[in-house]
Amino acid sequence: MASLEERIGLLRKGAAVLAASSDEARKKALAAMADAIDRERDAVKAANAEDAEAARREGTSDALLHRLVFTDSKIDSAIDGLRQLASLPDPIGRVREKRELDPGFILEKVTFPIGVIAMIFEARPDALVQIAGLALRSGNAVVLKGGREARRTNRALVSIIASAVSGVIEGEWILGIESHEDVDALLGMEKLIDLIIPRGSNSFVRYVMDHTRIPVIGHSDGICSVYVDASADADMALRIMIDSKTQYPAACNAAETFLVHRAIAPVLLPAMGEAFGRLGIVIHGDEETARLIPSAIPATEDDYHTEYLALECAVKVVGSIDEAIEHIAEHSSHHTDAIVTSDDGAKRRFFQEVDSADVFCNCSTRFADGFRFGLGAEVGISTSKIHARGPVGLDGLMTTKWLLSGNGETVAEYSGQGGKRFHHKELM
Amino acid sequence: MASLEERIGLLRKGAAVLAASSDEARKKALAAMADAIDRERDAVKAANAEDAEAARREGTSDALLHRLVFTDSKIDSAIDGLRQLASLPDPIGRVREKRELDPGFILEKVTFPIGVIAMIFEARPDALVQIAGLALRSGNAVVLKGGREARRTNRALVSIIASAVSGVIEGEWILGIESHEDVDALLGMEKLIDLIIPRGSNSFVRYVMDHTRIPVIGHSDGICSVYVDASADADMALRIMIDSKTQYPAACNAAETFLVHRAIAPVLLPAMGEAFGRLGIVIHGDEETARLIPSAIPATEDDYHTEYLALECAVKVVGSIDEAIEHIAEHSSHHTDAIVTSDDGAKRRFFQEVDSADVFCNCSTRFADGFRFGLGAEVGISTSKIHARGPVGLDGLMTTKWLLSGNGETVAEYSGQGGKRFHHKELM
Repeated sequence: MASLEERIGLLRKGAAVLAASSDEARKKALAAMADAIDRERDAVKAANAEDAEAARREGTSDALLHRLVFTDSKIDSAIDGLRQLASLPDPIGRVREKRELDPGFILEKVTFPIGVIAMIFEARPDALVQIAGLALRSGNAVVLKGGREARRTNRALVSIIASAVSGVIEGEWILGIESHEDVDALLGMEKLIDLIIPRGSNSFVRYVMDHTRIPVIGHSDGICSVYVDASADADMALRIMIDSKTQYPAACNAAETFLVHRAIAPVLLPAMGEAFGRLGIVIHGDEETARLIPSAIPATEDDYHTEYLALECAVKVVGSIDEAIEHIAEHSSHHTDAIVTSDDGAKRRFFQEVDSADVFCNCSTRFADGFRFGLGAEVGISTSKIHARGPVGLDGLMTTKWLLSGNGETVAEYSGQGGKRFHHKELM
Repeated sequence: MASLEERIGLLRKGAAVLAASSDEARKKALAAMADAIDRERDAVKAANAEDAEAARREGTSDALLHRLVFTDSKIDSAIDGLRQLASLPDPIGRVREKRELDPGFILEKVTFPIGVIAMIFEARPDALVQIAGLALRSGNAVVLKGGREARRTNRALVSIIASAVSGVIEGEWILGIESHEDVDALLGMEKLIDLIIPRGSNSFVRYVMDHTRIPVIGHSDGICSVYVDASADADMALRIMIDSKTQYPAACNAAETFLVHRAIAPVLLPAMGEAFGRLGIVIHGDEETARLIPSAIPATEDDYHTEYLALECAVKVVGSIDEAIEHIAEHSSHHTDAIVTSDDGAKRRFFQEVDSADVFCNCSTRFADGFRFGLGAEVGISTSKIHARGPVGLDGLMTTKWLLSGNGETVAEYSGQGGKRFHHKELM
């Protein structure tokens, strides 16, 4: 059996083949993946049943079991997702800049796959299918480390996917790994792996960053806030607050903090207290909040730095949009922050001055998601400012190359007095 | 005196002011910088004379002295560069994607400054001016650590620049640091600094990467190659080879390796041997090369992995473009690689299959440069595949934000059967 390093070395060669493959071949390969998963559905479900049984024996939480079980409807969605990926425009070779340096001397900046990407993700078989599809569509080879609890399902899926694609595109491009030792070994392979995308807890993402020189796209906490401006429609504000908090409280894009302008607080906060109380949401509020929501627990500074991921939130009354923007700058994790307002000036200021991956106006923070954004699928949500920020789709899996096409030009000709001069004419 | 951390904390606040400043204000500030440097030219030159005097006393190399001395003509160019930056289109707020998720529910991806950037660079006062100008134009605050030998000049320049800009834009946005202790402290400030751009030796870039969690854009070796295809015009090939090797041998974009197709070797190599001999360039060649260039030293495998940065090169005869592409995949540092050919198919394959930051056809590798590319100025050349690749101009100093503008939409409305559906209509 080849070593991990040798196997990833093969992926590097496969990545070059994939990067040079045609749009048509990659579309065909995605269709083959979809067909094969459909055809081998029983084998996948049998492996998944074993995983689920083992997880139940180990007393795994209901939440994890829920993510782990690969139901027919989840399989259908995963297959659907692959077909949708095939319908997206080819992400390879898109011209991002085009400039004539001098007549006939043409520079282009074009998109190109990153190479070999390692993805580490939770025990969700549908995530494996989605990630494999994104990698193939974008021409990248991929090393997959899924959650341990899903290992039998993952093994079955990787084998089905690899074999389906091998009929269309030659070479190794997908590799499943399982052990922590393999993950640790991988973190040291900076010459073979171009990018690591870890999903999971903050502490895990931090562990990865601390143990590798390979670039990492990760995400930190989602301490998201909704600021309700003086001019907001109170009904709309409450609807957005409820959706942001309760539509899926465990998601990173769920709201944790609500900032309410003093002018609207007397109307909004009592209604909020009643609605949130009915929904079983615990409120930590400052003194002004407590006066309007008697059930609120006194908030500490810590509450405004907390990602509850549960039916719990922090509320603060602010005197101005400036105070709200300042609070967000100091407390938000710069993931997703929203304003509710009917004042265009306030919206403009919020959009300009709040420095978060996603800045929303008059809608729920829960819209921060690759599928909802129309990116087809998402690899994850990045809170980094480098390379990709916010929901990361195919775009985040691409790099660029500069292509310069000349007719024998030398730099010497363009040097010194009396030399040729660049005319730098934009062609797009 | 405030601690380094406090001073960088002030930069973070200043960065927010700068990011929200108008295009006009930033243009005016660049003009003020240019005017002030012109006005204070004598003070700058006096500080620089002290630096040069001290460097001479310490027996500094001529090459370093040459970079250090800030002549009137270099000052003029630096001032010119600032005025050119002002003439470039505003890099802030450019719309990169625009999509309607549903009627009236609009998503935009717009460019935004990264925040606080730390730049570490060599003893070149003109680099300081250029970097300060790029930071200001792009709305980023900047921590500057220039070469120790230029410290008096750097101090004078930072003070002149800060004071000129303070008349236009409020707040701290530029900070010069000098000691290695300050650099080490800075590497730990992941909450205050968004990006580090180190220029310098590979070992220094690696040191930075190993000692920080802050994202780093660095560059590794420039082992660049020129492949001369069977179909090449031999005269053009020789001209490009000479320029790529000799126009500035110490640059990272100078060629180190020449790959010559067997079919053109009998014509090209003897001419190359003669021309390179005349120019004093040492050739390390394989056996086939040695047969056609008797003066060639036998090449070892190491020679094809060497960045000479001098009048020295490695030559290899290859049997096909495939062999050339494979050699580049295994030996190049993926900085800049060029083909000389008159065959469009060969050019296409080279452009598609060579995975380097810059891939050129029929021109010198020395064109890999931000100014020559028309980027206005460059922060450096990145050999990373993440965020920015190749010459990095204003674009590399920007991140993006997603702005979503709705009318009270909630995710609950878009969920489940019978829920609303996104229509995801592209608006650009």
